[in-house]
Amino acid sequence: MTDILKSPTRRQLLSMIGKTAGATAMYQAMTTLGFASESSFKAGMELKGAPPGASIIILGAGLAGLTAAYELRKAGYSVKVLEYQNRGGGRSWTVNAGDSYTELGGEVVTCDFEKGNYLNGGPWRLPSHHYGVMHYCKKFGVAMEPFIQENSRAYLHRVNHFNGVPQRLGDVQADVKGYVSELLSKAVNVGGLDRSVNTEDKEMLLEGLKGWGVLNKDYRYERSHDTGTYRGFDIYPGGGLMPDARPSKPIPLNALLQSGMWSDLSNFTVHNHNPTMFQPVGGMGKIGDAFTRECQEMITLNAKVTRINQDDNGVSVHYVDTNGGGNVAKIARADWCICTIPLTVLTQLDINVSKPMKQAMAAVPYDTSFKVALEFKRRFWEQDEWIYGGVTYTDMPITQISYPSDNMFSDGPAALLGGYGFGPTSYKFTALTPKQRIAAALAYGKHIHPQYPKEFKAGTSVVWHRIPWTLGCYGIWSESSRAQYYDTLCSIDNRIVLAGEHCSHIPAWQEGAILSGLDTANRLHKRAKSAV
Amino acid sequence: MTDILKSPTRRQLLSMIGKTAGATAMYQAMTTLGFASESSFKAGMELKGAPPGASIIILGAGLAGLTAAYELRKAGYSVKVLEYQNRGGGRSWTVNAGDSYTELGGEVVTCDFEKGNYLNGGPWRLPSHHYGVMHYCKKFGVAMEPFIQENSRAYLHRVNHFNGVPQRLGDVQADVKGYVSELLSKAVNVGGLDRSVNTEDKEMLLEGLKGWGVLNKDYRYERSHDTGTYRGFDIYPGGGLMPDARPSKPIPLNALLQSGMWSDLSNFTVHNHNPTMFQPVGGMGKIGDAFTRECQEMITLNAKVTRINQDDNGVSVHYVDTNGGGNVAKIARADWCICTIPLTVLTQLDINVSKPMKQAMAAVPYDTSFKVALEFKRRFWEQDEWIYGGVTYTDMPITQISYPSDNMFSDGPAALLGGYGFGPTSYKFTALTPKQRIAAALAYGKHIHPQYPKEFKAGTSVVWHRIPWTLGCYGIWSESSRAQYYDTLCSIDNRIVLAGEHCSHIPAWQEGAILSGLDTANRLHKRAKSAV
Repeated sequence: MTDILKSPTRRQLLSMIGKTAGATAMYQAMTTLGFASESSFKAGMELKGAPPGASIIILGAGLAGLTAAYELRKAGYSVKVLEYQNRGGGRSWTVNAGDSYTELGGEVVTCDFEKGNYLNGGPWRLPSHHYGVMHYCKKFGVAMEPFIQENSRAYLHRVNHFNGVPQRLGDVQADVKGYVSELLSKAVNVGGLDRSVNTEDKEMLLEGLKGWGVLNKDYRYERSHDTGTYRGFDIYPGGGLMPDARPSKPIPLNALLQSGMWSDLSNFTVHNHNPTMFQPVGGMGKIGDAFTRECQEMITLNAKVTRINQDDNGVSVHYVDTNGGGNVAKIARADWCICTIPLTVLTQLDINVSKPMKQAMAAVPYDTSFKVALEFKRRFWEQDEWIYGGVTYTDMPITQISYPSDNMFSDGPAALLGGYGFGPTSYKFTALTPKQRIAAALAYGKHIHPQYPKEFKAGTSVVWHRIPWTLGCYGIWSESSRAQYYDTLCSIDNRIVLAGEHCSHIPAWQEGAILSGLDTANRLHKRAKSAV
Repeated sequence: MTDILKSPTRRQLLSMIGKTAGATAMYQAMTTLGFASESSFKAGMELKGAPPGASIIILGAGLAGLTAAYELRKAGYSVKVLEYQNRGGGRSWTVNAGDSYTELGGEVVTCDFEKGNYLNGGPWRLPSHHYGVMHYCKKFGVAMEPFIQENSRAYLHRVNHFNGVPQRLGDVQADVKGYVSELLSKAVNVGGLDRSVNTEDKEMLLEGLKGWGVLNKDYRYERSHDTGTYRGFDIYPGGGLMPDARPSKPIPLNALLQSGMWSDLSNFTVHNHNPTMFQPVGGMGKIGDAFTRECQEMITLNAKVTRINQDDNGVSVHYVDTNGGGNVAKIARADWCICTIPLTVLTQLDINVSKPMKQAMAAVPYDTSFKVALEFKRRFWEQDEWIYGGVTYTDMPITQISYPSDNMFSDGPAALLGGYGFGPTSYKFTALTPKQRIAAALAYGKHIHPQYPKEFKAGTSVVWHRIPWTLGCYGIWSESSRAQYYDTLCSIDNRIVLAGEHCSHIPAWQEGAILSGLDTANRLHKRAKSAV
C-alpha cells in the first residue's frame, strides 16, 4: 500500500486515488457475492406484455398471493384475489390491542393490551438478506426498526442446572470460546495436532486462540481483569475511588457441558438470525397491511373457496361470499389460477389437479407452533436487569422469552413474547384454553423473571393448529419429500399453480412466500404468453 | 419440573406458580450479579444536608462536572460551573450540519452535511451496562435508538490478503468457529487431550463442537447446505423453481490465519461492545445538551481558567470572561473546587496543589485519536450491499468504517464514519489539513467501497490533539501508573479534587466521567460536612 500519509501533499493524496490496485477487481467480486439471487429477483419484476384480456384469479391474500397479484397487474393482467378472512396479509399478522379472534374449538382469543402493545402472531423478525421482503417494504414505505435478536445480557436457562439460575448469554458465549481455545491450545502445545497443522500455522493458531479465547500467558482461560473486559464484572469498574472492580467468574467447563446450554448459541449464529435484523415499526402486520393497501382494488375479502375447477379454457373458483354477514354461493372465473391456500386447507377442497399434484399436496405436513405474549405493568427486564431486547432461551416448554425491541426505555406497560415453541411443547399449549396458556407462560416464566406475578397485566396467544385459515403454522419439508414432491408441487398444473411459503426453500419466512409469489408470477406469465 | 401441561386444569396451573423451587433463590442471585455497582451508584445520589452556605466551584461543564454539579446542588450547595467553551457537554459532542470550529493551528473545520447528518466527535456508542449514562439519559429524557456494532454483512479487510477483497464479518466468524471446532474435535478423537478431558466430557465436547462449529458427520468443516444455513449463500434459497441455492464457500484455514483477521473479532466480543448498544437519537451530543440544560443556571460559558489558588478557607479561581467577545479578568471563589479540566490543559495552569498531586497530574499522557465522517449522496452500503449499521475493520490507516445506525432505509444523503483510529495512524491524520483528511479517508475507503468517488458529497473531522480544550482524546493509564498515581490523582487535595474520565477506571467513556463526577461529589460532600 502506498503510504501517502508520510508526506501528505495534495497531489500525492489525489494520485493515490487512482493508483492503488484492486478496486475494480474488488467491485466485481462483490457483485457476485450474495447478489446473484437478488439480481434474478429484480429481473423477475420486469413482467410486461400480458396477452390482451388475459385474466388471473389468485386464491389467498397473503404475501405470496399479493406479490403475484401486484406484479401480474403491472404486466397487464386482469387480476382478482379471493381471501377467506376479513383482512389481507395472511400470516403477516399482528394481534393488536383491542383485537379478538375465534379459534378452532370456538374459544375467543382477546388482546387486552394497552394501545401500542402487540403480539406478532406469525413472523416477527427480518434478516437483512431477505432481499424480497426488504424490497417491497422499502417500495411500500413500511417503516423499519432494528430487531434485537442477540443481547448478551439475556439468559440461557436450564431447569436442572445451576439450581435453575439463568446464566447470561454473553457469559456462556465467552466461556465456550475460552474453554475451546484453552483445550485446542493445549492440544497444539502437546503436539496432538502435529500431523494436521504445520509449524507456521501452529504459531498463528496459538496467537489467534489466545486473543479470541482471552487466555492468559499460560494459555489458560481463568478469571482475570482481561476476562472481565470481555465477560463482564460482578462489580463494574468505577469512577474515582469507587470500590475495586471484580471480574465475573467463568462457569466451570464441566457444568457448562452438562447444561447443554452450548447448543442454544446456534440461535444467534444461524444466518437467518444474524445481525442486523429488523421489524416493522408497529408490528409485522404492517407488511401485510401495506401489501393489502397496494392491492386493495383486486381483493375480495370474506370469500370462502369451496371448489376449484379447471378446464381447457380456464379456471372456475366456487366460493361463499360472506360479506355483510351473508352466505351467497358465487363463482369467479379466469384464464389462470394461482392458489396460495395452505395445503392443510387445500387438501380438503374439491380441486381437479393431476394425480401427482394431489400426491404432492398431501405430502407436506404442517408444523405446529404457539406464541404467548404477556403484558406487564413496567419493563422490569430493562429497569431491573438491564435487558434491552434480545431473546432468552430455556428448556421449559415456553422455550424462549423475547424482550420487545420497540419503545425501549419507555415507562408504562409493555408486552414481551412469553413463549414461542414448536413440536410437542407446542401441542401442549395448543391443548390449553387461551387463559390457561397465559397462566402456563406465567408459571414457567416466573422461574426466569420472578417479577412476573407482581407485574403481570394481560396476555394473548396464537396457537397455529387452531387458526381456521391455516390449520398449522407452515409446511415442513424433509430432504426426501423435497426430492420427491417439491418440483411437482411448484409446477404449473395445466391452468393452476400453487404458491406460498410451502412452495419455497424458505418455509415459515415471509421471504419464502414473496419469492414463491414472484417465481410463480414469472412462470405463469411465460406460460400465458406461450399459450396465446 | 412439574409438567402441569399433561393435565391442564386451572387449579393445577395455579398451584404450580407456588410450587416450583428456586425462584426466590434465583432472584437473590440476580440482584448480586452485576448490580452491586449500580446500587452503590444509586445510593451515591442521595446526597443531603450540605453545610449551610457551603459553596462549590466546578471547572469544566463536561459530564463529570455536570454530574457533580447536578447532585451537589440537590444536596444544598451553592454551585457554580466555569466552562471554557461556548457550550456545555465537553466531549459528549456532536458536530452537526452547519457547525464549524477552529482547531489548534488555526484551521477551520466545517461540516457541510445535509441537515440531520452528523459526526459524533467523541463517544458514539453506549453499552447497556453503562448504568450511569443510562440512568441520567432516562432521567433527562434523552431518546435512545439501537447502535448496531455487529453486522455480519459488514467487512473485515486486509490490504495484502485476499487480493484486497473485503471478507464478510459473518463469514470470518463462522469459519474461525468451524476450523477451531474441527481441529479440537480432531485432537480429542486422536486422544490428544486424554489427560485433560475425561470420557464423559469428551463426548459432550464433541457433540457441542459439532453443533457450534457446524461440522459434518466426520467432524469436518466443509461447504454444505448446513454451513450455508449459518454462513450464508452465494445464491440464496429461493421460492418456487428459482435457481438452486449455492452455499458460500469457507475461507481456507491457512488464508484465514495468514490474514490476521481473526484478531478483529474481539471488536465484537469485548464487553463494552456487546449487544445491546445504544446511541442517542440525533447524536451523542444530545447527552451533553441534556446535562447542560439541567444545569443551565449554574454554568458560566466562555470562562477561560488561568489560575486556581486554594487557601485554608476556600478556592479562588481566576478566569478570563470572553462572553460577548470580551476579555475580562475575573475571580470566582468558593469553599471547595472540583476540577475536571483535562490534565493536558491543567498541567499548564497555575494551581497550588501538593507535590504528589502535581506528579500524578503530570503522569498521565493523553491518547491521540481521529475521526473522519463522510457524507454520500445515497446509502449505497444499504442499497448495494445490504449493510445496515455495523462496523467494518481494515488494516488501512482509516482503521474502520461505521455505517449509520439511524434513519436506515431512508433515501437521500447520509454520513458514515469513514475513519476512526488511535496511535500512529492517528498522528498521521492529525498532521493533515481538514481537507486532506477527507481526501485520505476517501482514497483508502474506496478500496472497500468502490462507490466512494461517485457518491461522495462532503466530509468533516475531529483530530483530538488539535482540539484546544482537550489537547488529546483521553487519559491513558498503564497498570504501573495506576498503581503509583491513580489514588493520589483522585484524592481530595485540601480543598481541590479532580474528576473526569481520566479519574476513572473507564477512560474514554462517558460512563467514566459520570461515575467520577458522582464519586467526587460524594467524597467532597463527606469532607465538607466533616469540615464544619
